[in-house]
Amino acid sequence: MIRFECDYAEGAHPQILKLLTETNFEQTPGYGTDIYCDKARAMIKDLCDFKGADVHFLTGGTQANMTVIASILRPHQGVLCAETGHIQNHETGAVEATGHKVLPLPGKDGKITAAQIETACLEHRNNAEHEHMVQPGMVYISNPTETGTIYSRNELKTLSAVCRSHSLPLFLDGARLGYGLAAAPNDLTMADIAALCDVFTIGGTKVGALFGEAVVFTNPALQTDFRYMIKQRGGMLAKGRLLGIQFVALLENGLYFDISAHAVELALKIKTAFIKKGYAFLYDSFTNQQFPIIPDRQLEILARKYAYSFWQRIDKQLSAVRFCTSWATKKTDVNALIHDIGEL
Amino acid sequence: MIRFECDYAEGAHPQILKLLTETNFEQTPGYGTDIYCDKARAMIKDLCDFKGADVHFLTGGTQANMTVIASILRPHQGVLCAETGHIQNHETGAVEATGHKVLPLPGKDGKITAAQIETACLEHRNNAEHEHMVQPGMVYISNPTETGTIYSRNELKTLSAVCRSHSLPLFLDGARLGYGLAAAPNDLTMADIAALCDVFTIGGTKVGALFGEAVVFTNPALQTDFRYMIKQRGGMLAKGRLLGIQFVALLENGLYFDISAHAVELALKIKTAFIKKGYAFLYDSFTNQQFPIIPDRQLEILARKYAYSFWQRIDKQLSAVRFCTSWATKKTDVNALIHDIGEL
Amino acid sequence: MIRFECDYAEGAHPQILKLLTETNFEQTPGYGTDIYCDKARAMIKDLCDFKGADVHFLTGGTQANMTVIASILRPHQGVLCAETGHIQNHETGAVEATGHKVLPLPGKDGKITAAQIETACLEHRNNAEHEHMVQPGMVYISNPTETGTIYSRNELKTLSAVCRSHSLPLFLDGARLGYGLAAAPNDLTMADIAALCDVFTIGGTKVGALFGEAVVFTNPALQTDFRYMIKQRGGMLAKGRLLGIQFVALLENGLYFDISAHAVELALKIKTAFIKKGYAFLYDSFTNQQFPIIPDRQLEILARKYAYSFWQRIDKQLSAVRFCTSWATKKTDVNALIHDIGEL
Amino acid sequence: MIRFECDYAEGAHPQILKLLTETNFEQTPGYGTDIYCDKARAMIKDLCDFKGADVHFLTGGTQANMTVIASILRPHQGVLCAETGHIQNHETGAVEATGHKVLPLPGKDGKITAAQIETACLEHRNNAEHEHMVQPGMVYISNPTETGTIYSRNELKTLSAVCRSHSLPLFLDGARLGYGLAAAPNDLTMADIAALCDVFTIGGTKVGALFGEAVVFTNPALQTDFRYMIKQRGGMLAKGRLLGIQFVALLENGLYFDISAHAVELALKIKTAFIKKGYAFLYDSFTNQQFPIIPDRQLEILARKYAYSFWQRIDKQLSAVRFCTSWATKKTDVNALIHDIGEL
Repeated sequence: MIRFECDYAEGAHPQILKLLTETNFEQTPGYGTDIYCDKARAMIKDLCDFKGADVHFLTGGTQANMTVIASILRPHQGVLCAETGHIQNHETGAVEATGHKVLPLPGKDGKITAAQIETACLEHRNNAEHEHMVQPGMVYISNPTETGTIYSRNELKTLSAVCRSHSLPLFLDGARLGYGLAAAPNDLTMADIAALCDVFTIGGTKVGALFGEAVVFTNPALQTDFRYMIKQRGGMLAKGRLLGIQFVALLENGLYFDISAHAVELALKIKTAFIKKGYAFLYDSFTNQQFPIIPDRQLEILARKYAYSFWQRIDKQLSAVRFCTSWATKKTDVNALIHDIGEL
Repeated sequence: MIRFECDYAEGAHPQILKLLTETNFEQTPGYGTDIYCDKARAMIKDLCDFKGADVHFLTGGTQANMTVIASILRPHQGVLCAETGHIQNHETGAVEATGHKVLPLPGKDGKITAAQIETACLEHRNNAEHEHMVQPGMVYISNPTETGTIYSRNELKTLSAVCRSHSLPLFLDGARLGYGLAAAPNDLTMADIAALCDVFTIGGTKVGALFGEAVVFTNPALQTDFRYMIKQRGGMLAKGRLLGIQFVALLENGLYFDISAHAVELALKIKTAFIKKGYAFLYDSFTNQQFPIIPDRQLEILARKYAYSFWQRIDKQLSAVRFCTSWATKKTDVNALIHDIGEL
Repeated sequence: MIRFECDYAEGAHPQILKLLTETNFEQTPGYGTDIYCDKARAMIKDLCDFKGADVHFLTGGTQANMTVIASILRPHQGVLCAETGHIQNHETGAVEATGHKVLPLPGKDGKITAAQIETACLEHRNNAEHEHMVQPGMVYISNPTETGTIYSRNELKTLSAVCRSHSLPLFLDGARLGYGLAAAPNDLTMADIAALCDVFTIGGTKVGALFGEAVVFTNPALQTDFRYMIKQRGGMLAKGRLLGIQFVALLENGLYFDISAHAVELALKIKTAFIKKGYAFLYDSFTNQQFPIIPDRQLEILARKYAYSFWQRIDKQLSAVRFCTSWATKKTDVNALIHDIGEL
Repeated sequence: MIRFECDYAEGAHPQILKLLTETNFEQTPGYGTDIYCDKARAMIKDLCDFKGADVHFLTGGTQANMTVIASILRPHQGVLCAETGHIQNHETGAVEATGHKVLPLPGKDGKITAAQIETACLEHRNNAEHEHMVQPGMVYISNPTETGTIYSRNELKTLSAVCRSHSLPLFLDGARLGYGLAAAPNDLTMADIAALCDVFTIGGTKVGALFGEAVVFTNPALQTDFRYMIKQRGGMLAKGRLLGIQFVALLENGLYFDISAHAVELALKIKTAFIKKGYAFLYDSFTNQQFPIIPDRQLEILARKYAYSFWQRIDKQLSAVRFCTSWATKKTDVNALIHDIGEL
């Protein structure tokens, strides 16, 4: 079985294992106060061209999301997000478990617009009984989104402006950030993201690491005492250096971006193969996740050899599915898949 | 600087890195549903001689503690524990953040007694206003305790009996379990723990792993839907196999017990050296943590070469400190320390 | 200004003030353990023909809802409800503040169907990643709904059956229960509600009391320790008898049902007046809330003399508004309104 | 049975019932936005000589405490208080249910000192692992305390100063405030309390009202959005005017202070009677709660005619009990008790 069902089917990029092994017997203080975490922090600040950033490392995406969100909101506030947002659908109510409502906004492509934020804020404020409703307290977006789409620089600038005009911190979940930056239509840089968001994550788990998400706070008002939050939510790794070491390995010589480009290149080849076959797509993705709509009979044939994720039933004969590539995807596997798509 | 300040200063036992590297490019499904987690689960059930156990793997101790406790208690219930308990003092209120009060019981050696549990339950039940107080809903102990002491088989049996008579699940935090089982006075087996507790952890982070705690539910009434809890509290690793692989490596051929014995042997050598020097101890520990009481002037000398943890000021001239060994501690480092203790 | 904007604009029915005054200097034990609460409990059990019911009194609706819901759900569970449900929209995230997600289901008339519950449960169970999603743990309905509609006996029976088949407790929020039972199309009895729901409330605040909601648990599995929950959520009144006294006064000689019928009769007169004028309605309500759609120019005229609630903009010229009657509404005020509607 | 077991055994002062009855059919907007709440707010600001105060009305003490505390603390912070504090012992973990640890400080008389606060803050800050511990985020005191004692003006000034030096909001729970201000040794004024605390409550439930606590925020930084908090925690009364009306009645012509003085005068008579008999006291109270230590045999005799609260077993023959007076206590009842004490 060749697996295209997700981007976390393998271990880590060999450079990471190498650095973990080389440093294994060094003694360091715990909880992220070691030299490797320090080095990774410095590398991230450089990459983002943002000296005042406060950088932390957590083990997973749900953990990062709930810890960041709970650290920002007051009790009566909720977090605006796309109705397809990971925090709304795939975190077993982790945000609600910290006491906060997720406030989903409708959308077709996984994204939200500045106009939606503006409307949500005004509708709340102008409602005579607004004190009986959850107050919008921050905005969560993901880039790339859960549907593989990305925000343009202009879209992010407009979102950022409306958020700032309403004093809403803007949080970008970058669980697959590398794959977004590697997408052909992308015009965002790390420095743009740092300048336009108040806090964002750089995903390691799905982009070459064993595990790990870097949380980057650029807004100084949100930086106070975040380490307490990490500890309280169970995200503080005793051997914190494991996270520092992994991010050092990922960021050295642009490895993170190289392996992201590799995954995206292969995903686009798969996309092209499905297009050639005349299949439509649920979302127009230029990143490492592709969502073709395929007749069930053809899917059965593919399923004999390839693992993919079922996404959504379209009608009695058609299903949307997800094919994912990653830093670890082999060209030979993709070529085999493309060949078999051609044969369908 | 030679570090004795904690048992998580290094990476992982080489066997673990070896197995992680060997399996690195295998493709597995995520979230702990892979063959390595399955294998580790089977090994743990065997080890505990408890076929009906439900075994899960989480990344850290605080995460394991809060997730287990929040999964068991109803909203009005709290968790009884020693006043020195990790959940009471060193988890930034993680249990309270899930809505539950920690109910500390006094004690001198980090342990609690069956009589204390009995009294706490009766006092609660007999109080005319008990509905105005938090109801004891479970009992948390650690073994070894945060002070290095251990429970005897008889103590655990008595505790278990009183807990069952009051329908209180008994949770044993085994963050350093290997070091406890390796202690000379220990008469507990894994099977005893499985039979006497309702849920317990087997600590990996401090006993050879990069990270990882196995959570073992033996009480079937507590096993429902625990995977939801792990996900909700941010503890579900995408590449769950990393935990399975580590526990497989640790449990194969008794490695876990061998490296624990190594650490305890070295800790006792250090203990003996301090005893010879005439120093008293804050706690009478036979495990890998030792708490000598040392004149400040002597401490300053040791501090030039060795890292230890400050524990408690005793008086104007004396401090209790902690020296820790681990699976990774080198005999040569211990010998150097012993020599320098002799020279004080 | 004549107020039709809500059903809590006045104090309490005179019978309540009378009984409060008569009993004022009696000394009773606190927290709902007095003879008046006991008497009210017995009256409610009789009324519901349900001897095994567990009856409690809380001060308000949001308090009752969140306390009941938090007492039932496990941490990973959420509550299914209509997207118009009070807990979803008008309680400032009170349910989420106890850690639980509200799971709204779409609908046009404020009601949900048995088929929707069935689908939600099956979709959850059949999702390969259901552990990453909030598990449906109970169902919340309101009767009458927030839009003035009511459930028929047959609808409630079907809902109840599907809930029981999925082990989902069914909770009926009866904040305006009296007005629902008084509606012409209603065929539900108190005994039906008690038999078909697991827990429900009988609203006092909006039906003649100063304040107060009776919470009635019929499912014995949900009855344990609810008084702890009330205290923990801040709902336990020191002078609990105030609630008992009010419910005794309300239930004596069917006062609760008489005053409800009065309010509904007047509301239907208002409805008829708007129908005669040719106005449409946002919802087809037979209870004390009416939602006519009125041209803005006409609304301005009414607003000079009458207070109503703005509900929803329909288009540039039309708004849906709410006119409410209550136990305290005067016939002369309604007649004045009807006259002025005729003159529009 | 003559009841001295608590100060909430009766209904309300007749002036309150009178004003409730007189205003019963007035129509007012809901949720505390009516003219009576406005009037009561103005009266309280005048009384405290603090124009910038933000005044709210809640139904009960536990509700007020948890809502205030949860509105102030960030997630990783806890609330320092006396180990006898109501929030620590008698609110079923209401504060913990909002996610925060209560941090009790030892003490003999129900009070805490500025030095204790100072030490707690310094110990926290200076601990190398302070991020693993709950951060002190505010201070809770009660006046009078749960043991009947009171803070002097000087004590409160010192407490306030140390709190401000550590940026810890100081919250005074005045559930029995009237009785404290009426105590002979008291030298605090309402204006002192307003100036020295950041937020405090003026208790109505135990001082003449049916129910109701006024929450007074003097610190402007804590005033934002508190109405959302009230609604979210279930404390927003639909007929909010009931609270306004009660406080208007209580504060008009100093009624609150007169009835408090009445209760304290009678309590001191009881105290004197016990002193004459040679009994000791658990706490040296000059307020409406008295805690004599009485031989069990004598207690049995009193119990035939009088209700009191059991407080604490002293030894095999002696128990500490509580006798409470209130605004409603009758002189004849007190005289009867004094006579019977003399006869013991």
